[in-house]
Amino acid sequence: MKHYLQFNDLDANEYAYLFERAALIKKKFKSYEKHHPLVDRTLAMIFEKASTRTRVSFEAGMYQLGGSVVHLTTGDSQLGRAEPIEDSAKVISRMVDLVMIRTFEQTKIERFAEHSRVPVINGLTNEFHPCQILADIFTFLEHRGMDSQGKPDLACLAGKTVAWVGDGNNMANTWLQAAELLDFKVHVSTPRGYEIDEKMAVGAGGTSAGSYQFFSNPLDACKDADLVTTDVWTSMGYEAENEARKKAFADWCVDPEMMAAARPEALFMHCLPAHRGEEVTAEVIDGPQSVVWEEAENRMHVQKALMEYLLLGRIA
Amino acid sequence: MKHYLQFNDLDANEYAYLFERAALIKKKFKSYEKHHPLVDRTLAMIFEKASTRTRVSFEAGMYQLGGSVVHLTTGDSQLGRAEPIEDSAKVISRMVDLVMIRTFEQTKIERFAEHSRVPVINGLTNEFHPCQILADIFTFLEHRGMDSQGKPDLACLAGKTVAWVGDGNNMANTWLQAAELLDFKVHVSTPRGYEIDEKMAVGAGGTSAGSYQFFSNPLDACKDADLVTTDVWTSMGYEAENEARKKAFADWCVDPEMMAAARPEALFMHCLPAHRGEEVTAEVIDGPQSVVWEEAENRMHVQKALMEYLLLGRIA
Amino acid sequence: MKHYLQFNDLDANEYAYLFERAALIKKKFKSYEKHHPLVDRTLAMIFEKASTRTRVSFEAGMYQLGGSVVHLTTGDSQLGRAEPIEDSAKVISRMVDLVMIRTFEQTKIERFAEHSRVPVINGLTNEFHPCQILADIFTFLEHRGMDSQGKPDLACLAGKTVAWVGDGNNMANTWLQAAELLDFKVHVSTPRGYEIDEKMAVGAGGTSAGSYQFFSNPLDACKDADLVTTDVWTSMGYEAENEARKKAFADWCVDPEMMAAARPEALFMHCLPAHRGEEVTAEVIDGPQSVVWEEAENRMHVQKALMEYLLLGRIA
Repeated sequence: MKHYLQFNDLDANEYAYLFERAALIKKKFKSYEKHHPLVDRTLAMIFEKASTRTRVSFEAGMYQLGGSVVHLTTGDSQLGRAEPIEDSAKVISRMVDLVMIRTFEQTKIERFAEHSRVPVINGLTNEFHPCQILADIFTFLEHRGMDSQGKPDLACLAGKTVAWVGDGNNMANTWLQAAELLDFKVHVSTPRGYEIDEKMAVGAGGTSAGSYQFFSNPLDACKDADLVTTDVWTSMGYEAENEARKKAFADWCVDPEMMAAARPEALFMHCLPAHRGEEVTAEVIDGPQSVVWEEAENRMHVQKALMEYLLLGRIA
Repeated sequence: MKHYLQFNDLDANEYAYLFERAALIKKKFKSYEKHHPLVDRTLAMIFEKASTRTRVSFEAGMYQLGGSVVHLTTGDSQLGRAEPIEDSAKVISRMVDLVMIRTFEQTKIERFAEHSRVPVINGLTNEFHPCQILADIFTFLEHRGMDSQGKPDLACLAGKTVAWVGDGNNMANTWLQAAELLDFKVHVSTPRGYEIDEKMAVGAGGTSAGSYQFFSNPLDACKDADLVTTDVWTSMGYEAENEARKKAFADWCVDPEMMAAARPEALFMHCLPAHRGEEVTAEVIDGPQSVVWEEAENRMHVQKALMEYLLLGRIA
Repeated sequence: MKHYLQFNDLDANEYAYLFERAALIKKKFKSYEKHHPLVDRTLAMIFEKASTRTRVSFEAGMYQLGGSVVHLTTGDSQLGRAEPIEDSAKVISRMVDLVMIRTFEQTKIERFAEHSRVPVINGLTNEFHPCQILADIFTFLEHRGMDSQGKPDLACLAGKTVAWVGDGNNMANTWLQAAELLDFKVHVSTPRGYEIDEKMAVGAGGTSAGSYQFFSNPLDACKDADLVTTDVWTSMGYEAENEARKKAFADWCVDPEMMAAARPEALFMHCLPAHRGEEVTAEVIDGPQSVVWEEAENRMHVQKALMEYLLLGRIA
């Protein structure tokens, strides 16, 4: 049994399969072709942080696969409050087939997975957001990495550069894991005090070598990038730091100048919700290089491929 | 693509089709005849105001049609708070097939619809409540407007009079649109200060002509009516005015005297929840002329017909 | 039409059928054998108290039976607040096929059932928790009461003793009803001031005869028991008494000494969530005699059998 708690939990071969499968599943969705491999399978979704995109993409996706969903919010079941997380894992995983958790500490989801009888998916933690990066890479491949038969080709990622501009958060950490695993480069620029966790950086090749490189100037990070991407200055859970962050992040706004520093065919992505005028200008996010709406939609398609894989393995 | 944001969004021919279809769908429901035209279609329901009837009628209805539902509450996704409504519309409408919204301002739902890729249904706004009037007219037709073949016949509405007693609210506004479109009369009596919005009234033929007529005395409004209907004195969102409203509305209680002023075969309707002793007496709402329980149930049947129509058009 | 508001609402023959059916349904679940008798049937779940186990077990169970679920929380529909319970019952029961309610007073659920057109299930009240006892007895039979053909055999309960240690709450009350009906014994030990309601006790044969016997010392209650079971010291709704209860219940902790007083093959059950070190020690709940995880899972299987029975009756 496999869990999906970090991007590292699958290898490159599995990702190649997943992206191919996601493309097929998306095609079926667009043509209303029935695809119900998960009949009688139930997904439990546990949310300790609110969500629209994660909620809708997993829930609609599971229904489209013929399965069903039980949606638990914090009010119903704060993990570790009424009972030890281990007990919740044992009970819930006897009644459903798959569990998605959005919570704060990565350790919570790890403890749950350790005692779960069924696969567990990370729907966002303070440390990682693997489902979003899965969607982002799929979206990149759709635009820049399809082979001659119209299938996503991971080999196209070789030598490509992703520029991460802004907070050294769960998204940035996950990009580092993905780059190391799938052989592309990540250029990161964060304000001082908001750097990526040292451990993540070292794991991805240190600060000036391997897949990861740090830039104090965001414009330098964007130079020759194939993809420029960012996130809100203040993620959920850090609202108290909002004012301090606004000052610190003032120069980390993705604007036309940054996009001009990137390659001409560079794409812009954002996991949304976006605050125009803060981390990105309206010109960029609503401009021709932005693929944010497809990126959001692709959450659903890649997650469908992921759920199918975790429950049924490779389908011949 | 059609939205259903106001009663005006469909024309009389479309209503004739919808009512006929609703009758058929209700018949199938009563005999447990499988009817799954919306397999693999997902409805997103966005609630910014709480609801039981709207919630259950749409959700159970969608399941009965073979589809599925994602239920979002304000906590999950207050429209326009975390991100512009336009962004929410773009994202959500890429993942689901249909969106129902219960919110405050009509402009919110209009902005959502403008950027949605899929049909949007008004599940109640401060200005309109078209799904309820759809159910009310269907209920009236079931009792007073079936043709010789047992089908609802819109022609039976001609010359009929609906008496609206009470608040000049979203229900009253929607009755005015319906009367103008489907060729019946609405007699409205509201306390001073709680009149129908001037614009609605003029659109429906002014204050003393066309489909709409105002009466300062509720008893006069009920005279010779074929249907007497009312709503709570204090709708959701106006709780702060509760005491003032109780005084102002004291004479706008539908009682046996008002029902006696109406035609002998007049029906009584109420969109519920009801406050017996305030806007209606127990004798009336629990009496033989009341059809409030069928009216509530019919929300489900007409909305099923509506969802089917918005997604699939006319079924031969 | 049958409701399931108390354990008494079914008779011994019906329980024999239900347990046999639950065993079959569980077997199908384990082998992913499709079993969809409740296609097009909708269950409304009304929660006035939070829940994980009840929520997941009913909701996943209904989906597995091919049906669908509308989940209403207090925010959506506090029974008796926005409208009389009778009105809610009339409306909701016209749109769905089955209703499960978790609430405070038993009278609320009785009033609802009286005006409902569809069966109503007690998902826990202050007075009773019949679905949990249904699961507990099924779990006991799986371990100690299967006949030679591998079917649960109610006759095996004759002469058996259940020791209830702790609060004289809804679980204890329901055990008393079950013992009287299915012909086994219940030994109860509660702290002074937390005794079982006098009426329940008398109905089950008084304090020193019939199916029910009271012990002031919990160790005496456990003597020669076939099953030892307990619950948290402070159930939902009694949080204000928490400190007083901690003192009063200090000696009512199921520990290895109590288990040693019971029969060697005695089982331990707990409806969860559990507070290790309060009502039970970790050694016991995580020890070899504990069947709490199966007990939790069995909620789902017995409730599936119950829902099927209430909607379709006996299936040949």
